Amino acid sequence: MEKHLWKHIQHVKSKGPLVHNMTNYVVMNNTANALLAVGASPIMAHAKSEVSDMVALADASVINIGTLDEYWSEAMLLAAETAQTLGKPWVLDPVGAGASPFRDKILRKLLDFNPTVIKGNASEIMALAQANQETTKGVDSMAESNEAIDAANVLAKTHGALICISGAEDIITDTTQTVHIANGTPLMTKVTGMGCTASALIGAFIGIVEDKVEAVAAAMTLLGIAGQLAEKQSEGPASLQLHLIDKLYALSEKEYYHYLKLSRS
Amino acid sequence: MEKHLWKHIQHVKSKGPLVHNMTNYVVMNNTANALLAVGASPIMAHAKSEVSDMVALADASVINIGTLDEYWSEAMLLAAETAQTLGKPWVLDPVGAGASPFRDKILRKLLDFNPTVIKGNASEIMALAQANQETTKGVDSMAESNEAIDAANVLAKTHGALICISGAEDIITDTTQTVHIANGTPLMTKVTGMGCTASALIGAFIGIVEDKVEAVAAAMTLLGIAGQLAEKQSEGPASLQLHLIDKLYALSEKEYYHYLKLSRS
Amino acid sequence: MEKHLWKHIQHVKSKGPLVHNMTNYVVMNNTANALLAVGASPIMAHAKSEVSDMVALADASVINIGTLDEYWSEAMLLAAETAQTLGKPWVLDPVGAGASPFRDKILRKLLDFNPTVIKGNASEIMALAQANQETTKGVDSMAESNEAIDAANVLAKTHGALICISGAEDIITDTTQTVHIANGTPLMTKVTGMGCTASALIGAFIGIVEDKVEAVAAAMTLLGIAGQLAEKQSEGPASLQLHLIDKLYALSEKEYYHYLKLSRS
Repeated sequence: MEKHLWKHIQHVKSKGPLVHNMTNYVVMNNTANALLAVGASPIMAHAKSEVSDMVALADASVINIGTLDEYWSEAMLLAAETAQTLGKPWVLDPVGAGASPFRDKILRKLLDFNPTVIKGNASEIMALAQANQETTKGVDSMAESNEAIDAANVLAKTHGALICISGAEDIITDTTQTVHIANGTPLMTKVTGMGCTASALIGAFIGIVEDKVEAVAAAMTLLGIAGQLAEKQSEGPASLQLHLIDKLYALSEKEYYHYLKLSRS
Repeated sequence: MEKHLWKHIQHVKSKGPLVHNMTNYVVMNNTANALLAVGASPIMAHAKSEVSDMVALADASVINIGTLDEYWSEAMLLAAETAQTLGKPWVLDPVGAGASPFRDKILRKLLDFNPTVIKGNASEIMALAQANQETTKGVDSMAESNEAIDAANVLAKTHGALICISGAEDIITDTTQTVHIANGTPLMTKVTGMGCTASALIGAFIGIVEDKVEAVAAAMTLLGIAGQLAEKQSEGPASLQLHLIDKLYALSEKEYYHYLKLSRS
Repeated sequence: MEKHLWKHIQHVKSKGPLVHNMTNYVVMNNTANALLAVGASPIMAHAKSEVSDMVALADASVINIGTLDEYWSEAMLLAAETAQTLGKPWVLDPVGAGASPFRDKILRKLLDFNPTVIKGNASEIMALAQANQETTKGVDSMAESNEAIDAANVLAKTHGALICISGAEDIITDTTQTVHIANGTPLMTKVTGMGCTASALIGAFIGIVEDKVEAVAAAMTLLGIAGQLAEKQSEGPASLQLHLIDKLYALSEKEYYHYLKLSRS
């Protein structure tokens, strides 16, 4: 797998996939800039009157419920349904899963349209599995360190989705294989929307890369390595965010492979 | 008071208060990053279907009407009512008070839910006092330099709120005491949403600091001093914004007390 | 014309026009910061309940349909109608024209309120002319390199608007004269919302400069030159965005005229 990853990164840069984003207000700017930096073309569009057109135009869609409301949830369901119908890949980022019954209700409905990839942190993935009550015994019953992986496997099986758990170590699983990524740096957690940027980049890669596990691994390692390199030039989280975008744009193959930390189990 | 302020700043950093923000589209990213930089955890959520859940989850809420509309105003009223009912501290930032009858109408309704802190610039505080027509003679009748303080005292008495007037000098008053802060730098006025960042930081501090005057003073001095230090590294407003977030993250006690300019009357 | 341009830039800096923006979520922060950097005062407001008040208060309005939806489209039509009625200058930025029937329908309605300036890239200007089906033969029939200019002339004639086509070369036309600007740098296309910043700056300049062609030329050259200078200090698109705002704030007359590349035909 490792030897393919840089090829995928170059493929995104040269092909410029069109990525349709329905994401939260907080991160739209960063997300769009991260997509541009890796060579993709972002479209941000959420109107019920056009969202299906945008899904059809794009190579992939990203649905991120960070600042969800009733209107956006309807538009997101419409987009997810369109993506499923047209066979377009789409990413679900269940921001704040478990924080309110409203979020969990909408997430259950979104799951019905079988996201290609679900990307969340450990607590979101666990809450998501629990929201789908019939398919899990609930997070309380799981052992601390493995509970998110168990939840991911439940989700992967039930929805045929590839699951990416982001954290100090990122874990990608599709039930047949599991990839562990040890790139990134703790300072990235002090920048808002880093996880949302990850989801957007995943959208770019699954839009044009056949092997979806490799696509997600390319996106996550690219972001993590850009973050590690950015931190060397940074005095805090704002300069990290700036240098990270610059690095997404200018990263070399040599730097990438020097820092890559990926293993399988 | 001075000797407690750094303790409060450390308390926010170690405790990580959860701050629920209903703020304007322009500043959401900066606001979230400023909260993360000082150690707080931001939640941005505005849906009528979940806003009460978020108020209940959070240590404090911040309501900023910068890009108000009919939907958001209803959700904000619901959040403010919930905060009052649950006894949760909340900050009102009356952005653009006086600019339209719509804003003033919503602000009057929000005031009924007794914000813990009202933070605005002089003209907003005056417009807010005037919008509450029964309680003030109107801004026209006030003398230029003291009019905002008079308006603040009217608001403080009528609503039991602590008022923070931001400007070249920041003034904090709860009718029993007045604190003057001479930190900050004029270049901060060339960065959009600096006042909104102030309100968000106030939210973080009143969420976990008992003495509300000290909480607001800690937030305002921290921001002002970070701005002064940031300016030294800056060539204009964009680099100021970047270095300011980095400084909020990395400011030392020594730097803080070297720059602190606070007096009482 | 050239000798007037710096005078207009200084005029904006000293006079501080109030610019009302109804723009997309992605760029609101950048747009507001760019306006502040050149000395203008941004207001971001979109509520149907107050948008007419804001148009009336402001020196100019900017309507940018980047993240359009049904509510915003109604509010934008109300703002455009108010601007026309009050004789206030306004800018239309038809982001994504041609990408969906919804966008094209709203754009046709907005055109009825005769924008003072329409600013778009070549494909948006062509799509906009085509959306107005009765007035053009459609983009397919036009020759590659001149098709956008032909479309611009159709729009200029039909709506009495000044058209600005942004691109590697910016073209400004009001049917009686055409101005070509060769400032800017390709890296600017890797920063989201650069075109939206252009539209916002045009709003600032047409708000207080009589000669609208000169106003648009001043805005576009200022942005392009700031971008060129910023690039010299940049390692990628994020540092370009930062230095560009700093340069908008701090650009000197000498730098401006050293880089200015403008011609007429």
